[in-house]
Amino acid sequence: MFHAASELKALAPWKERQTVVFMTDFGTADGAVSAMHGVADSVCQTLRLEDLTHEIPQFNIWEASYRLIQALTYWAPGTVFVCVVDPGVGSDRESVAVLTASGHIIVTPDNGTLSHVAKKIGILERRRISETENRLKDSQRSYTFYGRDVYAYTGAKLASGIMDFDSTGPLLEPWPLMLEIEDPKIEKSCIYGTIDVLDTRYGSLWTNIPDTLFFSDNISYGDTVYVSISYKNRLVFGYGMKVSKNFSEVTLGEPLVYINSLLNVAIALNQGDFARTYGIGTGADWKISIRKI
Amino acid sequence: MFHAASELKALAPWKERQTVVFMTDFGTADGAVSAMHGVADSVCQTLRLEDLTHEIPQFNIWEASYRLIQALTYWAPGTVFVCVVDPGVGSDRESVAVLTASGHIIVTPDNGTLSHVAKKIGILERRRISETENRLKDSQRSYTFYGRDVYAYTGAKLASGIMDFDSTGPLLEPWPLMLEIEDPKIEKSCIYGTIDVLDTRYGSLWTNIPDTLFFSDNISYGDTVYVSISYKNRLVFGYGMKVSKNFSEVTLGEPLVYINSLLNVAIALNQGDFARTYGIGTGADWKISIRKI
Amino acid sequence: MFHAASELKALAPWKERQTVVFMTDFGTADGAVSAMHGVADSVCQTLRLEDLTHEIPQFNIWEASYRLIQALTYWAPGTVFVCVVDPGVGSDRESVAVLTASGHIIVTPDNGTLSHVAKKIGILERRRISETENRLKDSQRSYTFYGRDVYAYTGAKLASGIMDFDSTGPLLEPWPLMLEIEDPKIEKSCIYGTIDVLDTRYGSLWTNIPDTLFFSDNISYGDTVYVSISYKNRLVFGYGMKVSKNFSEVTLGEPLVYINSLLNVAIALNQGDFARTYGIGTGADWKISIRKI
Repeated sequence: MFHAASELKALAPWKERQTVVFMTDFGTADGAVSAMHGVADSVCQTLRLEDLTHEIPQFNIWEASYRLIQALTYWAPGTVFVCVVDPGVGSDRESVAVLTASGHIIVTPDNGTLSHVAKKIGILERRRISETENRLKDSQRSYTFYGRDVYAYTGAKLASGIMDFDSTGPLLEPWPLMLEIEDPKIEKSCIYGTIDVLDTRYGSLWTNIPDTLFFSDNISYGDTVYVSISYKNRLVFGYGMKVSKNFSEVTLGEPLVYINSLLNVAIALNQGDFARTYGIGTGADWKISIRKI
Repeated sequence: MFHAASELKALAPWKERQTVVFMTDFGTADGAVSAMHGVADSVCQTLRLEDLTHEIPQFNIWEASYRLIQALTYWAPGTVFVCVVDPGVGSDRESVAVLTASGHIIVTPDNGTLSHVAKKIGILERRRISETENRLKDSQRSYTFYGRDVYAYTGAKLASGIMDFDSTGPLLEPWPLMLEIEDPKIEKSCIYGTIDVLDTRYGSLWTNIPDTLFFSDNISYGDTVYVSISYKNRLVFGYGMKVSKNFSEVTLGEPLVYINSLLNVAIALNQGDFARTYGIGTGADWKISIRKI
Repeated sequence: MFHAASELKALAPWKERQTVVFMTDFGTADGAVSAMHGVADSVCQTLRLEDLTHEIPQFNIWEASYRLIQALTYWAPGTVFVCVVDPGVGSDRESVAVLTASGHIIVTPDNGTLSHVAKKIGILERRRISETENRLKDSQRSYTFYGRDVYAYTGAKLASGIMDFDSTGPLLEPWPLMLEIEDPKIEKSCIYGTIDVLDTRYGSLWTNIPDTLFFSDNISYGDTVYVSISYKNRLVFGYGMKVSKNFSEVTLGEPLVYINSLLNVAIALNQGDFARTYGIGTGADWKISIRKI
């Protein structure tokens, strides 16, 4: 972890790493993502071009913020992320490039996409992208594809070392626009949290309760806990289930509590789809509480 | 832009660029695309292998042609495209490699996939691929996967410089098989065009009316225009909407006219799905007319 | 093809090839696959990272085994495959790395994913992965994402040459866990086989009958054959169709028998979806018989 932007800029690990990772809500059915790759490749053909995902649900900034932090820390410092989920394209939301305490650069519309990174990792420096200077040549008549014309172009110039971070544009306060992220808590041996997101393909529920909090009181692997899930304060699920290291500890179709790959508490059915089976959704209105029984 | 094949062949930018971009209608659920990448990588392991999209609707040559030109010009000259949407695999349609005026090579069945590139950019030279010579070793018993056995193999040999363009096969006239592409027109201050394709994920309508034509008469950003959409001469939508630089100029769910990322006129609902909401499709039977009110 | 593990290890083609190909059932809608790529890239940033598919139906080991062999042989010897379809994650199934007679390395849970490779190509050596030694630093509290923490990490160390194959872990017998793979047969000029898998996007049926067996008796291209398909011994389809080199030999929507890209017998409708049209599925209960008429 880096503590000062100056320290990180002196190292400039992106010059050696030469890697851009893209994330959007564009899907991959048309030519948009490939056009972004092409722009980056045209800036510098030795760049490595990678994709985080392009299937963020349209305009869903919360999920963009979440998926970004899900993958970011597994990429080496110096990796540049270009993240474009941009319902306000062309509005007065800022276009920014930021340095993170983990040593990464993120180029993105500053619309909340940086929320989880800012809260969990920290932003060391934030700069407004000068859209007139950092813009693909001859793209001035295009107002709706900043992902290609501004973000991919700027990300590639940073990752290749062709442009210094300070040249991105004017320095801003290091506070990006934040979505509200609730903190979990323990009260009287009951743990309260929120269902942040689904493990999409399997329908498991990922909560905001870290394993350290979960195991801090009197719960251990092998215990049975009572899990309550409510939507807008109406109970929609309540059941006892086993705290398991992995899915194979319960029988097929049985529910379990486990620690997911981000080290947060999660709920699943072994080889089933918990969210669909019980009609559970995600977001600030979906609360979970867990207590040992 | 290049004006003669000889000029382009003398430069041979593909030798330096070493990049192959794949487009198919195969999807990515099985091993077909990876087999194509593997064949190209086996020809030359320093090639960069990129994907345009593999989600062209099955057998939809029109969309293949459109998606190709959507991304092609954002890739540097010398990039080699391997495009395989091939309902007539094994029939007497030609297999060809072409040089474009933009300096790219395209390897494809010549079934209409080159229509937009030929019309908007220009083909400098077209050669028939000798399928017996330019074919993966030991693939003679396979008649249904030319994408892997012929096109990926030939594209990789060209991109790596292992084979000269002239060695692809016999020279043909530079006129590929063309799908009909209609031209937009203005009559009495009303602009007439076709709905070419959807911006798939968002449901916006992309027309064939370029911004230069649209703004050539008396329309400016901020104006209100009346948009009529008809299917086989039956009116299915008619409404006034604002000509906007970007989506945030109208309220949520409101329709707008904007200039898309290819600099053509497009119609959308701000954060909605225009095509689904109003049941609009694409193709030569779907006409649009726009006049200032 | 290699005949002894020692011969292959002496050559160690992976050191030169530096390529990892990933296959999972994770989908690409979240950050999981990108986290795996990031881990591999962090191990060695000159590795090439490729994807076979991430859309294996959840927990479907049969299809994982099939898709692996569909693509594997088209990648050069020395390519490392990381294959994670792992319903038993955390159970007592082994984590293994194997050397194949084709010169590839596969890193995978040993749960049947290696069945087709073992039967059709052969496994030269199998080693248990020491999960405590070959594990991403600081990932010990994560028990459910071996794909990232163990398999991607180990695959990258092998592909980069940082770790020798013998250092993966203890030597096991070269017999992986096998799914049952039925053999086709001919009796009285009737050919009997199984419908192994669908050509997903097109709905064609891929059988386990190789072209060599099919053409061994009295069938030739151009012949008409009678195809019967049964599910649990109940006939669900019976019809005569032409043995064709390619789809264009029959009219639109007409059925045909052809040799697919893996050189097995397949059944399709020209530009239609055979499986959906006739309600055909795949697996050991779906039998096909073919005889000349």
